[in-house]
Amino acid sequence: RRTSKLNHMLKTFGKWIICFMIGVLVGITAYLVKQSVEFVNEFKFDQSGKYLEDERKFIAFLVYYSINILFGVSASLVIIPVGQIASGSGIPEVKGYLNGIRIPQSMNVKTLVGKLVSLILAYSSGLILGPEGPMIHIGSMLGGAIGQVKSKTLKWYPKVLWKYHNDRDRRDFISTGAAAGVAAAFGAPIGGVLFGFEEASSFWSRQLTWRTFFACLIATFTTNIILQGFDMQLHDYGVLKFGLSNKYLYKYSELIPFALIGVAGGLFGALFVNLNAHLSQWRSKFFANKKIYLRVLEVFILITITSTILYCCAAFTPCRSKTQANGSQTNSLDTSSSSILSSSGDNSKNSTKLFKLLNNASGEDKQEDKFIAFFCEQGEYNQMAGLSFNSLDAALRLLFSTSTDIFTIPTLAVFSLISFILTTITSGLMLASGLFIPMMLVGATFGRLVGQVIALFVSVDPCIYALVGASAMMAGFSRMTISLAIIMVELTEGTQYMLPVILSVMIAKWVGDFFNESIYEHLIEQKCYPFLQSQPPKSMIKLGVVDIMKTEVVTLHEVERVSKVIEVLKSEQHFHNGFPVIERPRPLDPNRKDAYGNLEYYEDETTYSGLILRNQLICLLYYRIFCHEQPLPQNPRLLGGNSNRRYNQRRFGRPTEYGYAPADPRMTYELMTQSLARHFPPIDKMNLKKEEIETMYIDLRPYMNLSTIVANETYSYSETYSIFRTIGLRHLPVVNKKNEVVGIVTRKDLL
Amino acid sequence: RRTSKLNHMLKTFGKWIICFMIGVLVGITAYLVKQSVEFVNEFKFDQSGKYLEDERKFIAFLVYYSINILFGVSASLVIIPVGQIASGSGIPEVKGYLNGIRIPQSMNVKTLVGKLVSLILAYSSGLILGPEGPMIHIGSMLGGAIGQVKSKTLKWYPKVLWKYHNDRDRRDFISTGAAAGVAAAFGAPIGGVLFGFEEASSFWSRQLTWRTFFACLIATFTTNIILQGFDMQLHDYGVLKFGLSNKYLYKYSELIPFALIGVAGGLFGALFVNLNAHLSQWRSKFFANKKIYLRVLEVFILITITSTILYCCAAFTPCRSKTQANGSQTNSLDTSSSSILSSSGDNSKNSTKLFKLLNNASGEDKQEDKFIAFFCEQGEYNQMAGLSFNSLDAALRLLFSTSTDIFTIPTLAVFSLISFILTTITSGLMLASGLFIPMMLVGATFGRLVGQVIALFVSVDPCIYALVGASAMMAGFSRMTISLAIIMVELTEGTQYMLPVILSVMIAKWVGDFFNESIYEHLIEQKCYPFLQSQPPKSMIKLGVVDIMKTEVVTLHEVERVSKVIEVLKSEQHFHNGFPVIERPRPLDPNRKDAYGNLEYYEDETTYSGLILRNQLICLLYYRIFCHEQPLPQNPRLLGGNSNRRYNQRRFGRPTEYGYAPADPRMTYELMTQSLARHFPPIDKMNLKKEEIETMYIDLRPYMNLSTIVANETYSYSETYSIFRTIGLRHLPVVNKKNEVVGIVTRKDLL
Repeated sequence: RRTSKLNHMLKTFGKWIICFMIGVLVGITAYLVKQSVEFVNEFKFDQSGKYLEDERKFIAFLVYYSINILFGVSASLVIIPVGQIASGSGIPEVKGYLNGIRIPQSMNVKTLVGKLVSLILAYSSGLILGPEGPMIHIGSMLGGAIGQVKSKTLKWYPKVLWKYHNDRDRRDFISTGAAAGVAAAFGAPIGGVLFGFEEASSFWSRQLTWRTFFACLIATFTTNIILQGFDMQLHDYGVLKFGLSNKYLYKYSELIPFALIGVAGGLFGALFVNLNAHLSQWRSKFFANKKIYLRVLEVFILITITSTILYCCAAFTPCRSKTQANGSQTNSLDTSSSSILSSSGDNSKNSTKLFKLLNNASGEDKQEDKFIAFFCEQGEYNQMAGLSFNSLDAALRLLFSTSTDIFTIPTLAVFSLISFILTTITSGLMLASGLFIPMMLVGATFGRLVGQVIALFVSVDPCIYALVGASAMMAGFSRMTISLAIIMVELTEGTQYMLPVILSVMIAKWVGDFFNESIYEHLIEQKCYPFLQSQPPKSMIKLGVVDIMKTEVVTLHEVERVSKVIEVLKSEQHFHNGFPVIERPRPLDPNRKDAYGNLEYYEDETTYSGLILRNQLICLLYYRIFCHEQPLPQNPRLLGGNSNRRYNQRRFGRPTEYGYAPADPRMTYELMTQSLARHFPPIDKMNLKKEEIETMYIDLRPYMNLSTIVANETYSYSETYSIFRTIGLRHLPVVNKKNEVVGIVTRKDLL
Repeated sequence: RRTSKLNHMLKTFGKWIICFMIGVLVGITAYLVKQSVEFVNEFKFDQSGKYLEDERKFIAFLVYYSINILFGVSASLVIIPVGQIASGSGIPEVKGYLNGIRIPQSMNVKTLVGKLVSLILAYSSGLILGPEGPMIHIGSMLGGAIGQVKSKTLKWYPKVLWKYHNDRDRRDFISTGAAAGVAAAFGAPIGGVLFGFEEASSFWSRQLTWRTFFACLIATFTTNIILQGFDMQLHDYGVLKFGLSNKYLYKYSELIPFALIGVAGGLFGALFVNLNAHLSQWRSKFFANKKIYLRVLEVFILITITSTILYCCAAFTPCRSKTQANGSQTNSLDTSSSSILSSSGDNSKNSTKLFKLLNNASGEDKQEDKFIAFFCEQGEYNQMAGLSFNSLDAALRLLFSTSTDIFTIPTLAVFSLISFILTTITSGLMLASGLFIPMMLVGATFGRLVGQVIALFVSVDPCIYALVGASAMMAGFSRMTISLAIIMVELTEGTQYMLPVILSVMIAKWVGDFFNESIYEHLIEQKCYPFLQSQPPKSMIKLGVVDIMKTEVVTLHEVERVSKVIEVLKSEQHFHNGFPVIERPRPLDPNRKDAYGNLEYYEDETTYSGLILRNQLICLLYYRIFCHEQPLPQNPRLLGGNSNRRYNQRRFGRPTEYGYAPADPRMTYELMTQSLARHFPPIDKMNLKKEEIETMYIDLRPYMNLSTIVANETYSYSETYSIFRTIGLRHLPVVNKKNEVVGIVTRKDLL
């Protein structure tokens, strides 16, 4: 017993080590993404900036555009060898995996690398997309990879990690990785944990909370320390970071506009989800039978559109004096609101060093950094360029800055419309892209717009409105609640805006839920993942388990012919990977034997005995755990035993008295566990002799799972659903009152 | 179907309304507690302050002491009629209830009122105890009460709430209430939600998170608005509130002392748990057969000790000039460290208005409020009195204040020791008391002590150390993790200290876990609640379900004699409240009849059919749902039916074809649901006729639960445990391969 306690402690300690490594690796990855993007962006704006100085606007655009195209198309091309699974945000895949769905390729190293490269390239391409969604997927892939460093590609299976080679631990590490991804991306450790719990995971435990918190903290910290060294604070820098002042606080009467922004966020969010779902459907139909290079072409076209629109917006916006922006609020708004977006072009010279904004990672807003000159003269700046000809992070920082008058109302109105449209059409392209930052940008622009309109009449601080707008818009499309609120609070480094944020999130979610479900639910549905929501579909609530189960269930006998096992494994008729094992009753006539000289049994008795999985069968085949003759099933119950007698039957691999079927010495618990992490060759290449196949048997009794939950056929559908959902089942054999197998339920049957 | 969807929506909407009401009520209660305590404390310090002015120290003490005694003893006397359940923090009861244990009296109105009154009195008694634990229990009782406004005492059962009259909804409302209690007490809505999830609940869902968040927000907000009107912010005021400045930030090298404080917190926490557990054991043995008034006497003695020690501490501390406290840090520390606690008494006059500190609920530390004069002259103050002769909230505010030199090192050393000892002996007294504030006080004093010692050598800010110390100490005794970290962050209104807080919490928990379990686990164990931890006990992990199940299981037939049902209900031999219902096989000989003229059956066949609960049986008896003759069990399977045929058997109350046993028209689903919320008279008082009892039958088939999970006797113990824990089962029938009932497992069998 002391050894087992020590083992348990070692295992737990190992989990902490793994979580630490997840944190560090995710942190480093977030840093890599951030740093590469910053480098590329700086290069891009520097190069095109050179020509801006000389007033060669078109050449500047061409440089800007061609760099965008270069990166965007590369980001798209990277996806082709890796597979479609690496495109998009990956959140549906993470949610699906954590719900218990095995999505092929979704968690392997190839996808990880492809997604990472595609993300860095795509995020530098000037498209309106964010790194958070892909970071979550990357985090979860890292979690899955570290948890069981093995690789189908490399064929490397280290022994020390065998004990984590099971579904539950893998799932936990993937949850942790996803949460660490959020934490590192936003610099929000608590928000990361809550995201993992609320949005990503379907199964969660208290131990997991604490370990995940640890990993999130390490991830945030790692990113920060590499970026800035030991001089800075935990929250000084995520991949994204805003420094809201906490001098100005809102008044309670402002809760009404905040609530209205919440309503708007919900409406726009629902609209976005709707548009996006339709667009995705159209896309998948349109590209269904066409060549994959058309999808690259699509990216090309979209980059062209995006770059053109964003550049032109900036180019056609008149310059504005810096003194205007610094003037007192009411005055400056009056004067500036007259400078409506007109078709002008009297811009000029002098920018370069303003692009240094992107270098300046420190949390403090330097006054100078707020202004992008674009073509404007010294002492002037282009307000639209601050949003459109700028990295998204920097644009967001501008929107959240406390200077009340950097932007005019028309600029904000135009940009919120443009960014909404561009975000909608960009999402779903064949490159790694996330939605958080773009939707935040849309929301912040819209919120600031509302704030500035209100500021025309009453003295308010538009930066709070920008924050509220960003929260509302994100809640509107993602329907996240508490995790979103916390992320926003952590971004603003203070709790003083919590109430407005929470209010808008709550209202946006309610309003959005009135129209449709979140974008992730739509994507999951569209990708046909058998995702189990926490509640069963209402339309089916009155059914029983017999209405949904597969009745054509493939069963195996406790001691089964090798030929039958191979036949079952090769067959593609059945769609379940767990096979109920049934007992054979005693022989009717001990003198009757079948063709192989074995006793014949009633074939209509199918008493349920246990469950065996496909990969267990393959493993048994591979190691040739065959027996020469079929031993008699010696279940004492069937030999007339007393049902009150105590049997010491235990789980697989332990000594057993039940049916007197000890495990074969060639197949121990350790070997089986290790084997399940391996990748076996197809059955045809296992060099099984024809003789073996035809005459030998496999004794499944020591290996089958005896502790499976079994449903009686009287079960209701909703009960079945809730068992699947709470325990995370994959197969549920259904038996009748005589314990005969009459069917099997898998996840897909529930939907 | 449309009706059912509407009903579902109405039910969900109802839940939101109930959560809103929980929030408002908990908020008001928190306000009441806060306000009454403030009033009483003010009265107390005002009265004794009068005599302090005249230098009549002993009379001042007598006044102070007698008020303390008055309230403390009343708080204890209140418990006597209500019962022991109302004393202590109530957190073990809440955890136990949410784990699925029915603890008698733990959630009823009498306990609620008793606890509330006792809390207000006890919190004003000068004892070192806090209101948070009892507020959690009060919140959960309010949650349970509002969720199903019914009362055994008042016999009032409103119809509109029937649909929430089930275990799951009640449990959810109680979780919400507990979380709202934390939120209102600390002014920390997010911390409240996380507390509910991490510490209080064993079952949690995503829907619950969001509704609980809502309730927490409402609770926090209600308390704030009543206290201060609409001028203030969400976080301006919990029952407890600190205003840490965010000007000074720590250096990374300070993480080392923070980690050491974490270690110390873990050690002291473990020591506290150990001492407390022993003391509680000693108490329960000592008072076991003695009169309950001895427990009141214990309270009396403890108040005497506490008041004397705290008063004397203040009285024997020399006065200190206010200018010293305001001087620059290093200088003042040098000068002040010489003024060691000496036996002096040259204190004098002038206090009164300083007690106004307690009135001053606003978040801003006024300079004047930091000083308690006690006997000192104008321009001087008594540093110890600020801690000991003050309300605990005010003392905490002082400890967290940024003024670096209010306290000298000896004062802090003495007070941290005294408060640790007093907290240890106070906890467990017969009055409503919590541990959060006292342990926070101990931790903050200790932390500030460490900070000031370090400040002798390096320039640091002791208030951060106080915060870290408080976090570490709370983590050390409660082993809370993420919820504690968030509560501390919410208290400090900023995330800038998150890293130190998290670090110390993490280390304190690890260190503490090395020695023992949390105080709540110890209390739960001591109170013998069958609490299921999230992991099964390691010592039993290799057992099977047959090793732990009760084999003497009481079963009922599908159609059972009334006499048998009554016999089963009256018997006290068996310890399970759910009875497996078994099928009778077809009659052996249709001509053989028993004494009542019914067919006789094999008695050794016990095929499992469903599960019926004790209160369902009582309800059936009460409404006399009897049938005259015993209908033949017409299960088609036993009549030779094909097991592939689809039967439309559903859950209770729905039309059924299974065995052709429709529900009796007198007992509908609605009536049953309503009835289960009622309190029935004992069976002897139901006026059942002897004739009915002897000749009539009850047909259980329409009412029994057909969707219960059933364990095969091959189940492993750990599998069984995890099913109980994840699904929240109470009864698990165990069957053999022929589906005959061979045993039953209840929660108590698992431990």
